[in-house]
Amino acid sequence: MHLEKVKVVSGSVRRLLRRNAYGNAARLLLKLRPGDISLIMQRLNLREQLQLFTLVAQKDRQLAAEALNDLGVERGVELVADLEGLEISQILQELETDDRAAFITALPQKLAEEVLEVMRPAELVQTQGLLQYEEETAGRIMTPNVFALEERLSVGEAAQTIQESSDFEMVFYLYVVDERKHLVGVISLRQLLTVHPSTPLEKIMSTDLISVDTATDQEEVASQVALYDLLAIPVVDHENKLVGVITVDDVIDVIQDEATEDILHLAGVEADDNVHATARNSVSKRLPWLFVNLFLALMAASVVYFYEATIGQLPILAAFLPVVAGMGGNSGTQALTVMVRSLALGEVSWKNARGVLAKEVAVGVSNGLALGLVAGTVGYWWSPASDLRVGIAFGVAMLATIFLSGVLGAIIPMVLKRLNIDPAIASGIFVHTLTDVIAFFSFLGLASFFLFPMQS
Amino acid sequence: MHLEKVKVVSGSVRRLLRRNAYGNAARLLLKLRPGDISLIMQRLNLREQLQLFTLVAQKDRQLAAEALNDLGVERGVELVADLEGLEISQILQELETDDRAAFITALPQKLAEEVLEVMRPAELVQTQGLLQYEEETAGRIMTPNVFALEERLSVGEAAQTIQESSDFEMVFYLYVVDERKHLVGVISLRQLLTVHPSTPLEKIMSTDLISVDTATDQEEVASQVALYDLLAIPVVDHENKLVGVITVDDVIDVIQDEATEDILHLAGVEADDNVHATARNSVSKRLPWLFVNLFLALMAASVVYFYEATIGQLPILAAFLPVVAGMGGNSGTQALTVMVRSLALGEVSWKNARGVLAKEVAVGVSNGLALGLVAGTVGYWWSPASDLRVGIAFGVAMLATIFLSGVLGAIIPMVLKRLNIDPAIASGIFVHTLTDVIAFFSFLGLASFFLFPMQS
Repeated sequence: MHLEKVKVVSGSVRRLLRRNAYGNAARLLLKLRPGDISLIMQRLNLREQLQLFTLVAQKDRQLAAEALNDLGVERGVELVADLEGLEISQILQELETDDRAAFITALPQKLAEEVLEVMRPAELVQTQGLLQYEEETAGRIMTPNVFALEERLSVGEAAQTIQESSDFEMVFYLYVVDERKHLVGVISLRQLLTVHPSTPLEKIMSTDLISVDTATDQEEVASQVALYDLLAIPVVDHENKLVGVITVDDVIDVIQDEATEDILHLAGVEADDNVHATARNSVSKRLPWLFVNLFLALMAASVVYFYEATIGQLPILAAFLPVVAGMGGNSGTQALTVMVRSLALGEVSWKNARGVLAKEVAVGVSNGLALGLVAGTVGYWWSPASDLRVGIAFGVAMLATIFLSGVLGAIIPMVLKRLNIDPAIASGIFVHTLTDVIAFFSFLGLASFFLFPMQS
Repeated sequence: MHLEKVKVVSGSVRRLLRRNAYGNAARLLLKLRPGDISLIMQRLNLREQLQLFTLVAQKDRQLAAEALNDLGVERGVELVADLEGLEISQILQELETDDRAAFITALPQKLAEEVLEVMRPAELVQTQGLLQYEEETAGRIMTPNVFALEERLSVGEAAQTIQESSDFEMVFYLYVVDERKHLVGVISLRQLLTVHPSTPLEKIMSTDLISVDTATDQEEVASQVALYDLLAIPVVDHENKLVGVITVDDVIDVIQDEATEDILHLAGVEADDNVHATARNSVSKRLPWLFVNLFLALMAASVVYFYEATIGQLPILAAFLPVVAGMGGNSGTQALTVMVRSLALGEVSWKNARGVLAKEVAVGVSNGLALGLVAGTVGYWWSPASDLRVGIAFGVAMLATIFLSGVLGAIIPMVLKRLNIDPAIASGIFVHTLTDVIAFFSFLGLASFFLFPMQS
């Protein structure tokens, strides 16, 4: 119901920009939500974005800051990169501490230092508080302004406290702490409405609560929030003192980022590449992996050297060679992708690996037999003078390659995970190289055996 | 803080099962959250899971039902598949309507009908209400029990109503409707605490609210919840009457499922394959795509036929052939994956396509030049008697293939999306086939031109 309105405004904004009426366009944006502004800005070029952003920021700095945040850190940084440190600092001051910290991390180091230098002391202290934690941990993505009630309060006093505090937007869980700030319980806002005001909090709070450590990996945080259907999760330090809270909207960002990271890694792209990255940036995120692959592909291709004579005798073999290798790559990619995703979702572990492997063996044999049979028939039929030897070599090589690539595709990600190497990044390279070698050796080896039975 | 406890219990459960002490193991599970039980069950085999599940269900049917739900629909269905219709029905009755509908959709049709036949009338009506909507729409995933307040109520009366209604667990947004159930506003629970009880709701409610239609695609629902940082989104029918609500925990499931779907589709696997699927199931989800690919790879390979004579003369060309094709495949996969993910996240549209394409052209030229240079050098150096012609053919073919595969990888997903075909499923097949053809023609064409300059 809401997006239609946004589309209408978006059309008007674009028409106004075509007439260079930036002031009028900015006035339209000022009536929208930050998310809407980010949607509209996405469709403009960088120059238009910057002009509009500056105009909006002059009228409503907080709105501009949140729209910037909704654009995403990468593109937000690109947008503000040419502004003065002071201007950036003033804008970032309007953001929640965790978002501010994420932005500052993404800025070029020199600019980040400038921005911190001119930041208001209160925001500076909070930001530096988060920056001391490792990237991608709970400490880094939490909001330190967490609303907590002391356990000795009554329900009536708690309600009073909530009414008086306006700084905390998201109060659906109310965390309860003891006099030394240790996290001891949780109550819901709704409970406050349904019991007598004189009831002490400790009587109604639940003490069986789920919390994470500042050092907990953000992926782990997200999977707990998802598993237990939480709206927020409290963060404690090593003494179990409440130091922050992570809300579900931040968890959604983590889930999307981690999925994007895995998708891109599986395709051999460093995370953070996207359609709006500069060409130079994209090259730096794709070329290294292509070089590694070229090197490995050439290594694998050197297998073909041994069989030069065979190919010289029967050049048609060269047509089947990329087919076997390609099909092995496809089947290996299928198995490894299923495995990598299952590992990411926590559906498989070293402990139930045996069953998983047994299944991939069965899948590999079935797929290999089916494809091997078809490949063998085509090979026989397409070869000069319908050469049965070519058919058998092609069919058997296909079976062997499909089977082994599937099994390797299942094993390699698990082994890498066990060695603490990101399976999404590294699995493909191993699986493809090994698959190429298997394909070349099996196909050309068999063909040579048939053509030159004495020498093999 | 919580997961350590779960790990300890998990260890105890496994020890008890080894001694066949199922009753004791079930008693341990009864003290846990449903999500914890699902975590522990994941590490057991199907027989153990079923025995434990049955024992838990005897003591606490709701806990068992929710644990089943947390296991995920696919594996949950596998687990209950051998139970009687009545038993399944009794368990599913304990779930929220949306979860129940999802389960029933996943059951084999005959069993689903049996389950519905014996369901309590109240639950049956609600379930059938959801099942009338299309799969993967807001109507299908919403909870129809939405808590709504009439606009004519005062804040005090509203608070009273909330205290009296115990059926609605998640009340953080309170939707306000007129006397004919049209959605007219929203207030937060917190506002009720902070204004005078005699204030009428219409005075304090916000009327600028975001809602979705029953027919809205679930991916669109998820992206709105994520963009506006909502905890829930109301669902209205075509008359703007409030018919349900989708909470953020369901949105997280949608986001994870859609990401999984895209990841698997990109690898040529039908969604829903996972490490716990049966081998037969996995074969049916992977083999069709492998057949399509075999067919297309053979089509592409037929290009090599034209150049049999060239290969016969210089068999070493066969070693470079899979390298060019493979590198084109890699570079195409990189570009198309970045594009598919950006399309899924709504970062790119037909309207800003030109800039995106220009960038891929630049990336393709850079990567192509870098890799072409290296490939050319290696080709020259590895060929018999350091044949410059092989080096040039290999280098230029590499440049052309990398460049064109990158550009195709960017264009094809956009075109498919425009034609309403899922780009994650279909892009790879087009890109890889075209890339193979480009690689074979450019490399062998150039090599032939150099070897037999007269005939080409």
